[in-house]
Amino acid sequence: MRIVIDGFGGDHAPLEPMRGAAQAVAELGVEMVVVGDSEKLENCAKENNIPLEGITIKHADSVIPVDEEPTKILKAYSDCSMAVGLKMVADGEADAFVSAGSTGALLAGGTFIVKRSKGIKRPVIATLVPTGGGKKFYLLIDSGANSDCRPEMLAQFAVMGTAYHKNMMGSTNPEVALINIGTEEHKGCELQQQSYQILKGMDIINFVGNIEARQLPLGGCDVAVCDGFTGNVVLKLTEGFSAYFTGVLKSIFYSNAATKMAYLLVKKQIAAFKKSVDYKEYGGAPILGVKKPVIKAHGSSDAKAFKNAIRQAKFCVEKNVCGEIESGVAQLKAGDEANA
Amino acid sequence: MRIVIDGFGGDHAPLEPMRGAAQAVAELGVEMVVVGDSEKLENCAKENNIPLEGITIKHADSVIPVDEEPTKILKAYSDCSMAVGLKMVADGEADAFVSAGSTGALLAGGTFIVKRSKGIKRPVIATLVPTGGGKKFYLLIDSGANSDCRPEMLAQFAVMGTAYHKNMMGSTNPEVALINIGTEEHKGCELQQQSYQILKGMDIINFVGNIEARQLPLGGCDVAVCDGFTGNVVLKLTEGFSAYFTGVLKSIFYSNAATKMAYLLVKKQIAAFKKSVDYKEYGGAPILGVKKPVIKAHGSSDAKAFKNAIRQAKFCVEKNVCGEIESGVAQLKAGDEANA
Repeated sequence: MRIVIDGFGGDHAPLEPMRGAAQAVAELGVEMVVVGDSEKLENCAKENNIPLEGITIKHADSVIPVDEEPTKILKAYSDCSMAVGLKMVADGEADAFVSAGSTGALLAGGTFIVKRSKGIKRPVIATLVPTGGGKKFYLLIDSGANSDCRPEMLAQFAVMGTAYHKNMMGSTNPEVALINIGTEEHKGCELQQQSYQILKGMDIINFVGNIEARQLPLGGCDVAVCDGFTGNVVLKLTEGFSAYFTGVLKSIFYSNAATKMAYLLVKKQIAAFKKSVDYKEYGGAPILGVKKPVIKAHGSSDAKAFKNAIRQAKFCVEKNVCGEIESGVAQLKAGDEANA
Repeated sequence: MRIVIDGFGGDHAPLEPMRGAAQAVAELGVEMVVVGDSEKLENCAKENNIPLEGITIKHADSVIPVDEEPTKILKAYSDCSMAVGLKMVADGEADAFVSAGSTGALLAGGTFIVKRSKGIKRPVIATLVPTGGGKKFYLLIDSGANSDCRPEMLAQFAVMGTAYHKNMMGSTNPEVALINIGTEEHKGCELQQQSYQILKGMDIINFVGNIEARQLPLGGCDVAVCDGFTGNVVLKLTEGFSAYFTGVLKSIFYSNAATKMAYLLVKKQIAAFKKSVDYKEYGGAPILGVKKPVIKAHGSSDAKAFKNAIRQAKFCVEKNVCGEIESGVAQLKAGDEANA
């Protein structure tokens, strides 16, 4: 299997993507392609003693800045590392793509270079969010790709999220819930009210009804469906709370000599908690609804986070997640036509 | 000053509202009216040795259930404790109203019994949310009253939130931000894009631009403006995270004998943190845009939480918050007309 990584995506490029690629070759048995300025990549490998065995360096002239208009990846930045990598995947030269660069550009590139799977209205970004309670995490879909959504899009998100969860988490019947401001059917805006009715009638997913945001961090469902505006607010608030809570823990234990001693006694438990909420453990966020696996790694990814995102890409290929999504959406369409 | 409390609102009615009213009389120097089944209220006072000095009991025949259709407060439940209390305030028999009953019913009752202030499009629920960082909290407005909003409504929320923050928190120029999925002007849906343009042009508020949800728990602004759907998701996710963190802290310190000892060393710091995020310390959520102060206390309020909500109501009366809001909205309208 051959996986491409954007050598110039993320805050710590090119060193960490290079190191992540080398770790993936050694530990996951995949072949890697690192895309970007080839001279810089080769120097980076040499200076840091990164073995290039199993790694191909593919040259790209430019890098698309994270704050650039995303669609510029198609024209003005069509020679950037992200675009060149995506083209390799689209052309069948590789099986999957990983980047920690601009989310918007990756979404635009995934949609128009790798292209949408058959029947997909809009590709979507799904994010695994760690939780407490019985479940370890839930899949938040859409976590930011489509601010404005129609109910039929949410129905597809539910199907894509179910297929991803089943194949990647090994679940058999993941619970799908609609993020809403109350559990009753009539709650929310028109989008939620109409989506509820569609989701309720779909027998190819396990719809468990509305979920209030309060239940999300407590492990209330496996797949949480919403529009990309709501999802992005949920995702970013979750990140904000992680930072807030880390600050609270610090201020508790840094108060005085006694509290510093207390820290030594709970160090192991705190480390376990931090690990349980560490995005680096969970790989990246897949862009679902495109023809080949495309994974968005966190902007601040280190080598380990890149390696885990590559592992996730590998797993997507092995499980044929893109194919499973396409057939799920075809089933949804067949159901709609039968009901029409 | 005379403040009315719903004797049958909340999970611990009528005991805790009664105790809260008695504490308010003793500590805040207000006159209280407790509304509800007078026999039950009198028995409750007798059985629990609650002094009735300074408290008038006003009879009401029924109680509106929390899951009842909110507008039923106007007809089917027009004799409920909440409706009777609101009527007293509307008729000038009292200065403000506090209830821990159904939020929807209180909003409907506030809007149609106490009535909207002049020029107000839609009354709104504002909630003080505790944060880390330099600021102690921010005012989330709308936190759930209006799922669907137009940009002009958000402009009024900004004015109402500013007036409330200035008068109740004693701030001089509170920073108002629009909750969005990016800081750039063009981010978000049509609602956010149009609202941004209106807010940017308003010289009677201190608009600081968009705020991402990540910054909310870190104290990124004083007044966070959004539609009621987004606000309710933010509020409930915040509550969920509080419960989640409490669970995490428990699991860290309950692991074994050593961690239990550690707890003793940081007990004081943890108590201080818990106090800083305890809604009971912050009073209730005001319904803004109605003619008299109406405060929604938390459903699980105890006597102390009720007393703090009554203190807040008293402060609203003293500061003439309703009048300040009305004149702020009149200024906004005058500005619009001057620009038209």
